[in-house]
Amino acid sequence: YIGIPSDIVNTEITVDAGKLDYSIPRNPQDTQEAALKDIIRAIQQAKNPIILADACVLRNNMKKELAELVKVSGFPVYVAPMSIDVVDHDLPSYRGCYSGSSSLDQVKKEVLSADLILELGSEQTDVNTGGFTYGLDTSKIIEFHTFVTKVFYSTYEKVSMQELLPLVIKHFPSSANIDPASIERSLGPRARRADTPPGEVIVQDYFWNKMTEYFPERSIIVTETGTANLGAFNVDLPKDCIFISQLLWGSIGYTVPATLGAAVADRSRRTFLVVGDGSFQLTVQEISSMLHHGVCPIILLINNDGYLIEKLIHGRDRKYNDIQMWEYAESFNT
Amino acid sequence: YIGIPSDIVNTEITVDAGKLDYSIPRNPQDTQEAALKDIIRAIQQAKNPIILADACVLRNNMKKELAELVKVSGFPVYVAPMSIDVVDHDLPSYRGCYSGSSSLDQVKKEVLSADLILELGSEQTDVNTGGFTYGLDTSKIIEFHTFVTKVFYSTYEKVSMQELLPLVIKHFPSSANIDPASIERSLGPRARRADTPPGEVIVQDYFWNKMTEYFPERSIIVTETGTANLGAFNVDLPKDCIFISQLLWGSIGYTVPATLGAAVADRSRRTFLVVGDGSFQLTVQEISSMLHHGVCPIILLINNDGYLIEKLIHGRDRKYNDIQMWEYAESFNT
Repeated sequence: YIGIPSDIVNTEITVDAGKLDYSIPRNPQDTQEAALKDIIRAIQQAKNPIILADACVLRNNMKKELAELVKVSGFPVYVAPMSIDVVDHDLPSYRGCYSGSSSLDQVKKEVLSADLILELGSEQTDVNTGGFTYGLDTSKIIEFHTFVTKVFYSTYEKVSMQELLPLVIKHFPSSANIDPASIERSLGPRARRADTPPGEVIVQDYFWNKMTEYFPERSIIVTETGTANLGAFNVDLPKDCIFISQLLWGSIGYTVPATLGAAVADRSRRTFLVVGDGSFQLTVQEISSMLHHGVCPIILLINNDGYLIEKLIHGRDRKYNDIQMWEYAESFNT
Repeated sequence: YIGIPSDIVNTEITVDAGKLDYSIPRNPQDTQEAALKDIIRAIQQAKNPIILADACVLRNNMKKELAELVKVSGFPVYVAPMSIDVVDHDLPSYRGCYSGSSSLDQVKKEVLSADLILELGSEQTDVNTGGFTYGLDTSKIIEFHTFVTKVFYSTYEKVSMQELLPLVIKHFPSSANIDPASIERSLGPRARRADTPPGEVIVQDYFWNKMTEYFPERSIIVTETGTANLGAFNVDLPKDCIFISQLLWGSIGYTVPATLGAAVADRSRRTFLVVGDGSFQLTVQEISSMLHHGVCPIILLINNDGYLIEKLIHGRDRKYNDIQMWEYAESFNT
């Protein structure tokens, strides 16, 4: 608990003249040049290079630079569960979501057989890595981070991808360029989730394959931690979608207010929320705020009959993992 | 955020043999004897002594000792907003709630004219003291605390009321005993909230005078921080009631889950919740848990049309203090 006097916002303080400096600190130039040289050499020598783009590309607002790198390199590109929307899924070089042993078999095979991985903005948490089953070989990975760059076993301190990546693009060796059309020739068609026929039980494969048909371009798709999120890993997004999930902390209940925020932030997009009933009940009152703010996201509520993921982790038959069933749709008429 | 591995509860650790020692540390004996001597002498010399009992009497589970002190002394007894239920309101020596300038005029007059105040378990926060308007004279106050005792300007370190208060009762000077019946003769009838006739607007005086008629003995009454709580200061409780409020941190939304907890903890009592609509919406889903656990408290929902207290503090016409109106009763049918 932090107590803050309610009138603190009215307190006048003295601030040094001048504007706040929002510029990003420059990378140390000698270190950066050394890193750049190593990276260019590694790219020239690679036979099966790939790009693996993760959450911090989004956090650093570098989708444009990533698109440029994908274009200039022609390398096959993979995303992580926390960055599904980081590249355009319509690109011929887009190959799917890599999350260790949770990946589609073919995606796993492709990533593991690469001889060079340009890993951008990686955030290796439990769920984002398929429970720490990445299994990638350091001797093949170049890591671009927010505050550091690593080329195989070498660390280049304070070399941020924000300054370095544009330089890599600028100096990209033309010899390395792969024709995107040739990727499918060599790797075969992109891995996709099994085409499951409708049945009595709605399985994740069926649900997500079906759902994506309904997402228009420019949708915002929010998926709650748990069943919704785990199922969404291999979703195929239409053009220019924003995909919001919260794997880093695993806080259930996050998505209902997040959906409100997203829908208010850009009313020109269609917003979808996919959430289980357990998480939904934690922050349900934000539906009221949605009505109050006049936004109308589409909510897909998965009836898990309680805290399903919790049941799977611990206490399958415990009462504390059960919740009261509601007549959800009718509740919001009142 | 604190991350805790979900399997930590299954980890075996080595603990020294023997049971946990729950006993309270003994007071330093010489210091305690000196304090006791000073206290007894002060009581013998007092002409208009009173008792002011506050929250830490409840926290230290000392209602019984307080009742004993009230009985053996016969002194008029006052409570604070955080300890309304600490003494039986049917006692002839019970005189009401003292909270500085927020008190009923007569209560304030009585407390301020005392020449000795036995102040038990005082918790002097903003709301509990009428915004720090206690205005009591240190030269008249004996403070009994959880870890210290103060007699006027002297501090007796580590002398806890848990050990000291029974000694004060045991050695209470018989000369000091006041006949409870004589209190009303000297002070007049106990101060009560104005008897307000029903009108178009429901005012706090009318509401709380009326409500108390409906509380049976042994009720649990929970009042939310804000309008509900501020109005409840001068409530007259039937025998053996439990009064739950949360003035210390001022966290709105506290009472809905607190009501669930109280109702589950003692299903033999009738539980009442008085809460404003702003606070209610913050934690409304615990109503679902009430249904799930089969408890049925009576909820009095005050339609303030938004965050009323927040409006009064700051932003009277600001949109962020407005909320969406619900058809509350119907919501819970679904």
